[in-house]
Amino acid sequence: MDHSRLSMSLGEAVFTQRSIRRFRPDPVPLADVELVLAAATKAPSGGNSQIARFLVVDDPALVSAFGALYREAWWAKRRDAAGWTGPGDLTPQDREQWGPSMRLAEEMGRAPCVVLVLSVPPHAEGSVLPATQNLMLAARALGIGSVPTTLHASVEGRLREMFAIPDDVAFHFAIPLGYPAGAFGPTRRRPTWEVGHHNRWEGPVPWAPAGAQADDR
Amino acid sequence: MDHSRLSMSLGEAVFTQRSIRRFRPDPVPLADVELVLAAATKAPSGGNSQIARFLVVDDPALVSAFGALYREAWWAKRRDAAGWTGPGDLTPQDREQWGPSMRLAEEMGRAPCVVLVLSVPPHAEGSVLPATQNLMLAARALGIGSVPTTLHASVEGRLREMFAIPDDVAFHFAIPLGYPAGAFGPTRRRPTWEVGHHNRWEGPVPWAPAGAQADDR
Repeated sequence: MDHSRLSMSLGEAVFTQRSIRRFRPDPVPLADVELVLAAATKAPSGGNSQIARFLVVDDPALVSAFGALYREAWWAKRRDAAGWTGPGDLTPQDREQWGPSMRLAEEMGRAPCVVLVLSVPPHAEGSVLPATQNLMLAARALGIGSVPTTLHASVEGRLREMFAIPDDVAFHFAIPLGYPAGAFGPTRRRPTWEVGHHNRWEGPVPWAPAGAQADDR
Repeated sequence: MDHSRLSMSLGEAVFTQRSIRRFRPDPVPLADVELVLAAATKAPSGGNSQIARFLVVDDPALVSAFGALYREAWWAKRRDAAGWTGPGDLTPQDREQWGPSMRLAEEMGRAPCVVLVLSVPPHAEGSVLPATQNLMLAARALGIGSVPTTLHASVEGRLREMFAIPDDVAFHFAIPLGYPAGAFGPTRRRPTWEVGHHNRWEGPVPWAPAGAQADDR
């Protein structure tokens, strides 16, 4: 597989990867889907088991049916977690935190493409997630946005039916792919001296600025 | 953080990442450790929770003590899984599959650096693994080899004691870092048409060669 189209530097891809939840309607070329799947397959897996499987959904009718399921699952999760039953239950502060993902729940059905990340036995999330991160980084390098999402257990039976997924295949993530309506760009993350430790948990990393306080030390 | 040193293309990093289990003794510069940790922090995490923590061990006495623990844990896992108690229990075929990781169990204590990947509550492997994959890809881009390893539960108490890891911090992976004694290079993985599906589980991807058989369809 020729990977020359993934010419963006690793640094730029990693440092500008951010969750994209709003997509332009333009389709994602199948050649790009193939390339991001190839990148996914290159990730390490436990004992090189290569258990990850990828179900590419780009039939608009199926994406739309999946979108309805996803919206229902999103609200089922919020009902379990916070008792919310609709947008009216969110405070302005809730909306700031949850607004983008609530909007994705409305728009998932119009995503140009959704990749379902699955696995065959022996299922192990540890052998699926590195592949998933490779997939999203490769998408980023091609200008394609993505975000990893999960589903509430209450819809799993219907998901299996919708895509004819066998009982011994496990569902892990649903990843919408599309050109971002907004922009990629640098993310704000905690500095390495807050999350890094040196030789002992209490040990500050040597590059920590003088006087820096790690909030969890 | 300046990421210009991660100038390797994403394609090359992803397509030539392979598990490295033999290391030259040369130390890994701390500036490189800082950069791979910065790449790790940029990965997405559930609700941007950023729970992953990284304990960098480069004190040779501590790496050596960890190595003894790792060797014991490796054999405890193999005893549980296959009843092996020492190298003499492996058939020639076992040696082909397990030889490299058995040798790593001997050599871990001489790795130039080991990063323990931990998390603070709420622990979720899904919010730790993308960071771990970023870390290993960034290492690859700097010419530094790595491999994700786990530990047998029987040594966890001593691991916590050794590094003063608090009870509410979870251990996920130990990743040795070092310049490879061997070479990086392309990996052999299953082709995308074997692990990719289109619109339904039974659907071959459009780029599958005519007559290709997916082994799990």
